[in-house]
Amino acid sequence: MKNDKLKITFLGGVGEIGKNMTALEYNDEIILIDAGLTFPGEDLPGVDIVIPDMSYLVENKAKIKALLLTHGHEDHIGAVPFLLEQIQVPVYGSRLTLALVENKLKEHPKVKFKGVAVKPRNVLKLGSYVIEFVKVSHSIAGALAFSITTPVGTIVHTGDFKIDYEPIDGQMTDLSRLGEIGRKGVQLLLCESTNVCRKGYSMSEKRVGETLDGLIKGHPEQRIIVATFASNIHRMQQIMDIAEKYGRKIAFTGRSMINVSEVALKLGELKFNRDNIIDIEKVDKMADKEVLIMTTGSQGEPMSALTRMASGEFKNLKIKQNDLVILSASPIPGNEKNVYNVINALYKLGADVIYDELADVHTSGHACQEELKLMHSLVKPKFFIPVHGEYRHMKTHKELAVKLGMDERNVLLPCIGMQIELGANSIKEGKLVKAGQRLVDGIGIGDMDSNVLRERKQLSEDGICVVCVNINNIKGEITGEPFIITRGVVYADEQESFVQDAKACIIASLKESDLRGVEPSMIRSSLRRNVSNFIFKRTKRRPMILTIVTLD
Amino acid sequence: MKNDKLKITFLGGVGEIGKNMTALEYNDEIILIDAGLTFPGEDLPGVDIVIPDMSYLVENKAKIKALLLTHGHEDHIGAVPFLLEQIQVPVYGSRLTLALVENKLKEHPKVKFKGVAVKPRNVLKLGSYVIEFVKVSHSIAGALAFSITTPVGTIVHTGDFKIDYEPIDGQMTDLSRLGEIGRKGVQLLLCESTNVCRKGYSMSEKRVGETLDGLIKGHPEQRIIVATFASNIHRMQQIMDIAEKYGRKIAFTGRSMINVSEVALKLGELKFNRDNIIDIEKVDKMADKEVLIMTTGSQGEPMSALTRMASGEFKNLKIKQNDLVILSASPIPGNEKNVYNVINALYKLGADVIYDELADVHTSGHACQEELKLMHSLVKPKFFIPVHGEYRHMKTHKELAVKLGMDERNVLLPCIGMQIELGANSIKEGKLVKAGQRLVDGIGIGDMDSNVLRERKQLSEDGICVVCVNINNIKGEITGEPFIITRGVVYADEQESFVQDAKACIIASLKESDLRGVEPSMIRSSLRRNVSNFIFKRTKRRPMILTIVTLD
Repeated sequence: MKNDKLKITFLGGVGEIGKNMTALEYNDEIILIDAGLTFPGEDLPGVDIVIPDMSYLVENKAKIKALLLTHGHEDHIGAVPFLLEQIQVPVYGSRLTLALVENKLKEHPKVKFKGVAVKPRNVLKLGSYVIEFVKVSHSIAGALAFSITTPVGTIVHTGDFKIDYEPIDGQMTDLSRLGEIGRKGVQLLLCESTNVCRKGYSMSEKRVGETLDGLIKGHPEQRIIVATFASNIHRMQQIMDIAEKYGRKIAFTGRSMINVSEVALKLGELKFNRDNIIDIEKVDKMADKEVLIMTTGSQGEPMSALTRMASGEFKNLKIKQNDLVILSASPIPGNEKNVYNVINALYKLGADVIYDELADVHTSGHACQEELKLMHSLVKPKFFIPVHGEYRHMKTHKELAVKLGMDERNVLLPCIGMQIELGANSIKEGKLVKAGQRLVDGIGIGDMDSNVLRERKQLSEDGICVVCVNINNIKGEITGEPFIITRGVVYADEQESFVQDAKACIIASLKESDLRGVEPSMIRSSLRRNVSNFIFKRTKRRPMILTIVTLD
Repeated sequence: MKNDKLKITFLGGVGEIGKNMTALEYNDEIILIDAGLTFPGEDLPGVDIVIPDMSYLVENKAKIKALLLTHGHEDHIGAVPFLLEQIQVPVYGSRLTLALVENKLKEHPKVKFKGVAVKPRNVLKLGSYVIEFVKVSHSIAGALAFSITTPVGTIVHTGDFKIDYEPIDGQMTDLSRLGEIGRKGVQLLLCESTNVCRKGYSMSEKRVGETLDGLIKGHPEQRIIVATFASNIHRMQQIMDIAEKYGRKIAFTGRSMINVSEVALKLGELKFNRDNIIDIEKVDKMADKEVLIMTTGSQGEPMSALTRMASGEFKNLKIKQNDLVILSASPIPGNEKNVYNVINALYKLGADVIYDELADVHTSGHACQEELKLMHSLVKPKFFIPVHGEYRHMKTHKELAVKLGMDERNVLLPCIGMQIELGANSIKEGKLVKAGQRLVDGIGIGDMDSNVLRERKQLSEDGICVVCVNINNIKGEITGEPFIITRGVVYADEQESFVQDAKACIIASLKESDLRGVEPSMIRSSLRRNVSNFIFKRTKRRPMILTIVTLD
C-alpha cells in the first residue's frame, strides 16, 4: 500500500465551504461527491454562475472513478455539465437526481453522460470503496446520504437533510440504518451545517400542507396562485392534492415548473391526474374558483413568471382584485429585496398575498439543532468535519459536537482547497490544492479576482471617461477638437458645461508639454492625471479614464 | 377660511413610504415632520446617500413654519442640512435629537441653525397648529410622538416607537397621556409599520442587558469587544454599567461612538464615570480581563472599526485567540452579507463571537403587533394612515386596524408624493406633488432614474468597449490602425486575440461603406452594430459601445 491515508479535498463553495464539490482520494482512486454551482450576488456584476475550479481534477483525471450525487438541487448538480465536458466519469444518484441532470444536459448536447440510478440501501463497490446509499428527507425528493467504507474506516456524508417524522412520500430519513452504521463504528462524519444556528426542529412538510389547505379552503371564491420551488416535488404534490380536493384545476407556468413536473410525473415521484391539468392560456376562460395556478418566481427572480405577473408583463395572466397569491417559500439570503418588491407590487394590484412572515407556508429542508444532535448521536463518529456552511456555521457546529461529547481535537474545520488526511487513528490538515471559484460569464470562464470583475466594479461605482485627442507632432499642435465622452459620471443637465470645461482642461494639459516629436505614450499619463483631477474637483468622483492619443 | 382641509404630503422614503419626511399643510401654514436620508443599496452603485426631493417645499418656502423631529436617527434627521441649505426654518426636537443635528452641521458650516429643545408634555402653538410632544420609547433616547391639534381635528403621529415596560431611563412610552388624547377624540393616526408582520411584543431593552450581563460575567478572563449602534444610548448605558460592575475599564472606538458618547454625556443622557474610560491605544497594556471595548461596525460597514479589526487592519487593536466579540445588533436588511463576513473573519482569527442568532443580544426599537394594537386602542382614531413601511407592511397594518374595528374606508395607504386631504368628516386622496428621491453622489445631486445610474448599471453588468477610427473621407480610406479598448469585457488571457479579431471586424465594417465624402455620424451606427455583434458572438455579452470616428 503506497499510502494508508485517505484524502478529503474541498473543491467548491462561494461563502459556504464543503458544499458544491468534495473529493475522496485513496491512493490512485478518487470519488467525487456532488458538482454544484452557485448563483452570484450583486458583488459579482454580470456573472451568470460560479462553478468550482476543476484544475485539481483535470490533473488527476485518470484516478477519478465516479461522481456521486446527493440530490438534484443546482448547488449540487449544476456544475455536472462542466465537469463532464472535461472528465468522463459515471454518475451515481437517485432516479430523480439523474433525470434532472439529463434535463440540464439538453443544453450541452456534446457531453456524454453515463448515469447509474441507485436506491436507498443499495451497495456499490468501487475499487477500495464500498458505498451504501441512505435515504434522507430534504426539500427535494430522491435525496441520499452516503456511508462509504474505505480502508481507513467508514465515512458518513449526510448530504443536505432534515428529519421529518411525517414525510410526504412515507419514507423517513433512515434513522435505524444510520444507527446500525454508527454502531458498527464510523471513522468520520461530514455533516451539513446550514441551520445549525436555529434552535429546535424544522417544521414538518405536512404542517405546510395543513396551512395551505386552510388557506385554499378559506378562499373558496378567489383565484389562487401559488409560487414555490419547482424542485420541491413534495410541496407540489401537496398543493396539487389540495387543489383537487377543492375542485380546482391546475395550470403550470414557468419553464422549470413545467420541466420538473413532467420529469417527476414520468418517474412516478409526482402523482396526479392529467385531466386536472389545464393550459395556462385557458385560465382566463374559467371561473376564479375553478383554478389554481402553480408558478415559479418565489425568489423574485427578474424574468420569472411571478415577477412578470407582478409587473403586469405576463401575457397569459393578469393579476386582479382579490386574487390570492401564496409564496410557499422563504427568500434565500440575498433575494429578500427582490421578493419583497414582488410582494409589494402584487398588493398594489389588489391581490391578497400570503408569505412566510404571515403564515407557515414554507419549511426549511435543512436540519436544525435538535435534528443535528440526533444525527451525531446515531452516527457517533470518531472524527467530525462540519460542511456546507459559512465559517460561523461550521464553528457553531463544532461547538454542538463538542457539547455532545466529542473531543475538540477530533474536529477539523475545512477551507476551500484544503486536503484533509484521514488515517485509522488520526485526522490532520494536509496541503492546499488549487481550488475555488470559476466565474461563468456569457461563454467565458474567469477567475474570481479577474480584471473583468475589478473593472466592472470600478465602472459601476464611478463611471468612465474617454478622452480622445489627435496631435500633429511635427508642427507640435493639436489637430481638431479634443473628444470627451463620459458614461455614469455627469448628470444630463450638467453635460454641456462639463464637456466645454473638460475640453479646456485637455487643451491646457496638452499645452504643458512641447508636442513636437512627442510620442503618444509620453503625454497620456499627464493627460489622464489632469482630467482625473478636473473631474474629481467637479464631481468628487474618480471615474476610470481612458486616453486615446492619435498622431496625424 | 380659504380651505377647510388639511393636506398631508408624503415627501420621502426609498422602499419605505411615509418615512423620511412628511408635511402638514393648512392654508398657508406648513409644518414638516422629520427630514431624513436613506443609505442606498447595491442597486444604486456609487451613490452616497438618498434624500427626499424638496422641490415642493422650495416652491412653498414662505409657508413653512417649523420642522419637528421625532428622534435622532439618520433616516429622520440626515437630510436636515440639505433642507436648511435651501429653507430657513426653526427646528424643534428633544435635546439629544438637536445635539445630534448640530453635530452633523459641523460638516455644513454655512448652514444657519435655530434649534428649539422641547420636552415631553410641552405644548407649542404654531399658527393654526397646537403641538404636544409625547414621550415614546425607541432604540435611541429622546424619541417623541406628536399630538397635533388642527382646525380639522387632532392628528397623532407616533414617530418610531415601541412599548417597553422596563425602560432603561425609567420613562415609558406615555400610554396614559395617549389614552387621554384618544379619549378627547383623534381625527387621524399616522402610525409606524416596521414590525407589523411580527407577532407578539418586542423584547424589553432590559432583557438585552441581562443577556449581556450573563455573557460578560461568564467570560471573566477574556478581553471583550462589544459592537453596537452609537445612537443606542440606553444600550451603551447598560454595557457601561455592566463593565463597571465587573471591574472593566471602557475604551471607545469608531468616530460616531466617540462623538455620540460625548454629546450624550454632556446632556446627561448617558451617565458614567470618566475615570472608567481609557484611551483605545492603552488597551494593549492592560490585562484582558480589565477592559471592554465599545466599537461601531455592528452592520459590517466596510470602513468601520470592527470590520477593520476583523480584517486585521485596525492598528490600535489586534483580535487574538479567545477574545469575546459581541455584536449587540441585528443586521439591517441588506447588510446581512457584510455582517456575516465580519463574523466569519472574527471566528477565523480565533475569537468567540456572539450575535443575535445565538443569543438575545439585541432587540428592535419598533413596535410588534400587540404593541401596535395597544397604540390603536388608546388613540382610537377616526381615520388611519399607516406610515413608515413598505407597501406590504402598510397593507398588513391596515388589516390590523380593520380587525380592531376600524372601517376600512377610513384607512388610506399613501404613496410618495401623495397629498391626502383631511376634513372634519372626510379623508381622501388629493393630487400628487413632485416628490421622491434625490441621490447625493460625490457633490452632485441627481434623480433616481438618471442617466448616470442607468449607465453605471450597464457598465457594471457588461463593461464597455471604445472603438476609435480615423478616416480620410477624401481618399475614402482608413488612416492608421483602428483603436479598440475594452474594460470589464475580456479576460486578460484572451485580450490579445480579441483585439486582433476586433480590429479585423472594424476594418471589415468600414469597408462595407464607401468612405468618400462620408460624415462620421453616418458610419458610427453600423460600426457600433457590427462591433456589438462581434462581441456578443464571442462573449455572449453586450457591453456599452462608444464609437469615435475622426476625420483626417
